[in-house]
Amino acid sequence: MKASPVTKVKSNIQKDIALGVLREGDRLESVRNLCRTYGTSKDTVCKALAELAKMGLIELEARKAPRIRPWKEKRIALLYASKTEIFYDTFWDEYAQGILAAFEGHPEYKVEIFNIATSGSTAVAEAIEKENCRGIISLGYQYFDRDNFRHLNELGLPMVFTGPDPMEGTVNICSEFSAALNEIAEQLQFPEQPIPLYCLHTGTGLKNVAYSEKFYQTGKMLQKHFGISISKDDIVQREYDDDLAFLAQITEKLRRRKRPNLAILDSDCIGPVFFRALHDAGLRCPEDIAVFSFDNLPAAQFTIPALTTIDLRRAETGRLAAQHLLDILDGKPATSTQHSAAVIFRESFPQKTAHHKKYKTNNGEAK
Amino acid sequence: MKASPVTKVKSNIQKDIALGVLREGDRLESVRNLCRTYGTSKDTVCKALAELAKMGLIELEARKAPRIRPWKEKRIALLYASKTEIFYDTFWDEYAQGILAAFEGHPEYKVEIFNIATSGSTAVAEAIEKENCRGIISLGYQYFDRDNFRHLNELGLPMVFTGPDPMEGTVNICSEFSAALNEIAEQLQFPEQPIPLYCLHTGTGLKNVAYSEKFYQTGKMLQKHFGISISKDDIVQREYDDDLAFLAQITEKLRRRKRPNLAILDSDCIGPVFFRALHDAGLRCPEDIAVFSFDNLPAAQFTIPALTTIDLRRAETGRLAAQHLLDILDGKPATSTQHSAAVIFRESFPQKTAHHKKYKTNNGEAK
Repeated sequence: MKASPVTKVKSNIQKDIALGVLREGDRLESVRNLCRTYGTSKDTVCKALAELAKMGLIELEARKAPRIRPWKEKRIALLYASKTEIFYDTFWDEYAQGILAAFEGHPEYKVEIFNIATSGSTAVAEAIEKENCRGIISLGYQYFDRDNFRHLNELGLPMVFTGPDPMEGTVNICSEFSAALNEIAEQLQFPEQPIPLYCLHTGTGLKNVAYSEKFYQTGKMLQKHFGISISKDDIVQREYDDDLAFLAQITEKLRRRKRPNLAILDSDCIGPVFFRALHDAGLRCPEDIAVFSFDNLPAAQFTIPALTTIDLRRAETGRLAAQHLLDILDGKPATSTQHSAAVIFRESFPQKTAHHKKYKTNNGEAK
Repeated sequence: MKASPVTKVKSNIQKDIALGVLREGDRLESVRNLCRTYGTSKDTVCKALAELAKMGLIELEARKAPRIRPWKEKRIALLYASKTEIFYDTFWDEYAQGILAAFEGHPEYKVEIFNIATSGSTAVAEAIEKENCRGIISLGYQYFDRDNFRHLNELGLPMVFTGPDPMEGTVNICSEFSAALNEIAEQLQFPEQPIPLYCLHTGTGLKNVAYSEKFYQTGKMLQKHFGISISKDDIVQREYDDDLAFLAQITEKLRRRKRPNLAILDSDCIGPVFFRALHDAGLRCPEDIAVFSFDNLPAAQFTIPALTTIDLRRAETGRLAAQHLLDILDGKPATSTQHSAAVIFRESFPQKTAHHKKYKTNNGEAK
């Protein structure tokens, strides 16, 4: 959809305010000059100015050029999209902690949190417009459809995204975990080939699995180190809120003649259900099946066995995203950045070299 | 704080609209008559009418009595206060499901959810005022302070509360679980006296434990069946988000010379941490310590061992709360109501009679 001339004038001025090109108390050009600048009619400019005044961004005075209104608080919109998955509030909290920490040295900004999943994108965009927001940090893309983006883009605010699946043309901060996966592979010393089982924590639909960076990188690692690939048949996925069906799926895979001996959990949050399936099948971890996971959620240390997991360092992602947005607001350039994930070795996949643990064969004999 | 005359007139008219005394299209009395009815000045009445018009509840026309505006949707405000505890969104969801099911036969109402914990009570009260709400269902009291109540009461809308700790003078729906506790006690056949450990899932502060109906009823059950009482020393409580400290507290209690042999978890959500502490201490459940819990959260079936738990039947609480509110809106009387909780026996505290399981002594020998 092409922006209307009114929207174009409005969002350009809004952007200049957001970026600090126009500062509190500054006057805009006269209406006549604005018409010239934007190559548009007086009617269009006046409509755009009226909308900006309604948003509280400018003050209109008779016979004077409009003035940028002073604001008590400049805000930063923090967008997330929790669909209230078990464990997942903790997940989002860690990003938020990193972001809030970065803004502690910038009391002129107040971070306001918006949930796209519960409020809807139109309402969020409207709220952001009213709130004197100067920039947007969005946690992930996968929850945003074309309409979300349209609404947000029309605000004309600088945006920084986080998450492992970067979108072209945006500033994106994420964690690089191929090195962490290689570190895991080096500890994986089976007597036979690994037989993988990839457990997706939420039903994205098989067609989307390929778009999951976690799945993609895990596949690359297995290919590189062991010459194997993950087939459709090696994947189970949890539909939202149906853990019993998920347990049944895992149980079925654990009963296969070529039983998996390496399980990869897309997120720690499915650890409890996975270990319950293992327990019911009479299998031991890590003796019969080695398990590693992603996310390093707090609960991963309490499962029995405790989960070896790849820590994506969400607080650091949040801190860097905030820093990048502050740079953009300062007029400095900012580009997409990756930082390193870390493996946390725990009981489900112990670190052979560090703990001098012996892996056992499927018969339970020490190797 | 005493309500101003303007607020008094405004909230009385608002209440009449909410209760259906004044219906869509009805005309109010003339300003002159309203002055007489409320014993107040024309200025006060006009201010009140202006506010009602701004809220969109009435239409003002020159030389005519104000008219009640037609609305597309009558709304019901559903208040909750999730502080994003692990597992707890599932907890609230079940209430909401019961409520939404009850309103399915009443398409004239739309249920709107407000979170007191994240939005604050003033903002919630303001939103409710704008949204043509006709009644309020509040999930629990414990999150509401005096100010919350003042804001909500000033709205003059009928309210129904849920939760096991009823407040005097309100319509309250809750689950009655003393019978469920007695059922558990009858299965509890220790060779020696039970030594209890009560684990609170959230740090309410020891002083508030006594106000927890779960704790109070459990104490009554232990007194009645075994002649013992729970002392301060038999309680551990989890501070928000600090599961490691909670684990350490439990571990310390499990090391006592008079080791607990009966653990009561205030909510299933602390099951994983509790069982981890048990595992690390080398204790078996239920052989060394019997465990039961409250809430019947979905995750309780996946812990190892699976949790015996008291199901407070939150969906039923929600359904009854909605039904009571619909009754009030219909002009029928409604009083506080209790419905029965149910015990779900699982591995952590098996049902002796049903499963013919034998309890073992602390030495692990079958009794």
